[in-house]
Amino acid sequence: MMSDTHIVLAHGNGGRYMRELIDAVFACHLGNPYLDTRADAVSVPMPAKQIVITTDSFTVRPLEFPGGDIGSLAVHGTVNDLAVCGARPLYLTLNVLLEEGLELAQLDRIIASLGHAARQAGTAVVAGDTKVVPRGEGGGIYLGSTGVGIRPDDVRLGMRYIRPGDALLVSGPVGDHGVAVMLAREQFGLTGEVCSDSASVLPLTERLLNLPGLRFMRDPTRGGLATVAHESCQGARLALTLNQAAIPVRETVASVCEMLGYDPLYLACEGRVVAAVAADEASAALAAWRALPEGRQAAVIGEFVDGLPQVVLRTPLGGERLLEELEDDPLPRIC
Amino acid sequence: MMSDTHIVLAHGNGGRYMRELIDAVFACHLGNPYLDTRADAVSVPMPAKQIVITTDSFTVRPLEFPGGDIGSLAVHGTVNDLAVCGARPLYLTLNVLLEEGLELAQLDRIIASLGHAARQAGTAVVAGDTKVVPRGEGGGIYLGSTGVGIRPDDVRLGMRYIRPGDALLVSGPVGDHGVAVMLAREQFGLTGEVCSDSASVLPLTERLLNLPGLRFMRDPTRGGLATVAHESCQGARLALTLNQAAIPVRETVASVCEMLGYDPLYLACEGRVVAAVAADEASAALAAWRALPEGRQAAVIGEFVDGLPQVVLRTPLGGERLLEELEDDPLPRIC
Repeated sequence: MMSDTHIVLAHGNGGRYMRELIDAVFACHLGNPYLDTRADAVSVPMPAKQIVITTDSFTVRPLEFPGGDIGSLAVHGTVNDLAVCGARPLYLTLNVLLEEGLELAQLDRIIASLGHAARQAGTAVVAGDTKVVPRGEGGGIYLGSTGVGIRPDDVRLGMRYIRPGDALLVSGPVGDHGVAVMLAREQFGLTGEVCSDSASVLPLTERLLNLPGLRFMRDPTRGGLATVAHESCQGARLALTLNQAAIPVRETVASVCEMLGYDPLYLACEGRVVAAVAADEASAALAAWRALPEGRQAAVIGEFVDGLPQVVLRTPLGGERLLEELEDDPLPRIC
Repeated sequence: MMSDTHIVLAHGNGGRYMRELIDAVFACHLGNPYLDTRADAVSVPMPAKQIVITTDSFTVRPLEFPGGDIGSLAVHGTVNDLAVCGARPLYLTLNVLLEEGLELAQLDRIIASLGHAARQAGTAVVAGDTKVVPRGEGGGIYLGSTGVGIRPDDVRLGMRYIRPGDALLVSGPVGDHGVAVMLAREQFGLTGEVCSDSASVLPLTERLLNLPGLRFMRDPTRGGLATVAHESCQGARLALTLNQAAIPVRETVASVCEMLGYDPLYLACEGRVVAAVAADEASAALAAWRALPEGRQAAVIGEFVDGLPQVVLRTPLGGERLLEELEDDPLPRIC
């Protein structure tokens, strides 16, 4: 028997129930002039020749958490991957995997949130696909989103442009998303006031694009700041010294991490940017970020130096230790 | 403890194990000048201004079946959605959801098959994302693929261009993919010789693009030929008469369907095209398809006529019945 309130397998079969679900939920919240839910593919205008493409998948649990949900996250994750490359997102496509038994009201909330996030980032979902998997073979909702954007021809960003002496900046406190999701799972017997930082970083990245000394940007998601630090010094073939005292971490995040034995440097952010900037432009970059509400706590946190590609953490007491590359997973299904 | 032979959660954490998996499997099989597994997004050249975008998700079970696997299917499904719009696929992106415990050897076979299918279709995977979900929360592998293609400015295809008198053609036997997957599940105690028709339909679609009377093409995947028939007569606001005796169905497919109570018209194909063509060009279209190995069994199977948008099936004995829109799902996880 069909259900009016929960997902059933027939919502994924290509027939009438599927068509009605697409209309009631997806076309309703994501409608825009290009989206055609009856078409195999859509044609879109493209104003420039240098296009940039990225894709990301989302499996976060719980599906809704303080500060966001899997829907807004699927927009932010993909928009941010384009933003840190210096691109402006134009179009998104969406893959939706629903598990039989999902409550339709929750699906509706999440897709509404996704549509809102897409509009806020100035982009539109132009194509999508929905599949339903049998109960027990999914995680409620899994999403995939692909982004297509354009980039000015003169933008040259990459780890290979980093030079000795360049500064490393972060746009705000790290670990908020990881801790917010962890607390929302309620499996640790802790509750907290930490909200995910899930947000579009376009305002942050666009402010730095006019700096000739901007070398490289990345959003520290899975694997956190530590992973971006490792990737950038490997890509630059330089050592990186991080000043631990300068890295912004909220007090609640620090204390939850201490209680549970996590290091906030390895926890995912979903609305922060890490940028490498020439030394003589570091203070201009910092000022540009701090002038924005989302960059108020931005900080210069490190410096690239000649040496083996490794990350040296300078502790508040003046000691030094190597920051290891992430190996075992502290928190699955964080994004 | 880490496993060398099966997927563990740490393969999805953004750290070292994930980097090694991406290099060993994905970069190995999908390598091309644009793919940069270290980048957030990649820049690609785009030779025309009219670009076409599509996306699709894949949850087929079993992951490997006679005639294909989830990897080649993820290429064919997305390439075919572009092809039936008259576009040539240029770039693919790939979302990969792996379940903890998946055998690495199987992942390697499937991604190798995906890379082969992409090269055969003249396209390249330029971006990807991999997530690992805990054991019991996935189906082994789920894939999502997004395709970006270009289309000549003068191609005008759509259900709204269909006129009374237009012919409906199908490029080959229907139901092969559905029956091949069903038999591969071994849950019916039947074995058969049916192979999936999973293939790129680009050779078929490109042969028709020079016909001025070509109105509309679609690949009959989920919901099968019956669903495309319904969609096209609803989009055209015309009735469609299908000649049952003319619809090609393999003997093995027909007998398996009869035994299990399925109708092959509702079963998924993954390498067929349905096309609406002006009456006076139907025989030219048929001849063009029959000249290709993949179109040898093409047939004219119906005609659009004035009337309410419904599908009338003319039976071999001269009777007529309405073909219903698909409601309950005969076969979940078929694509």
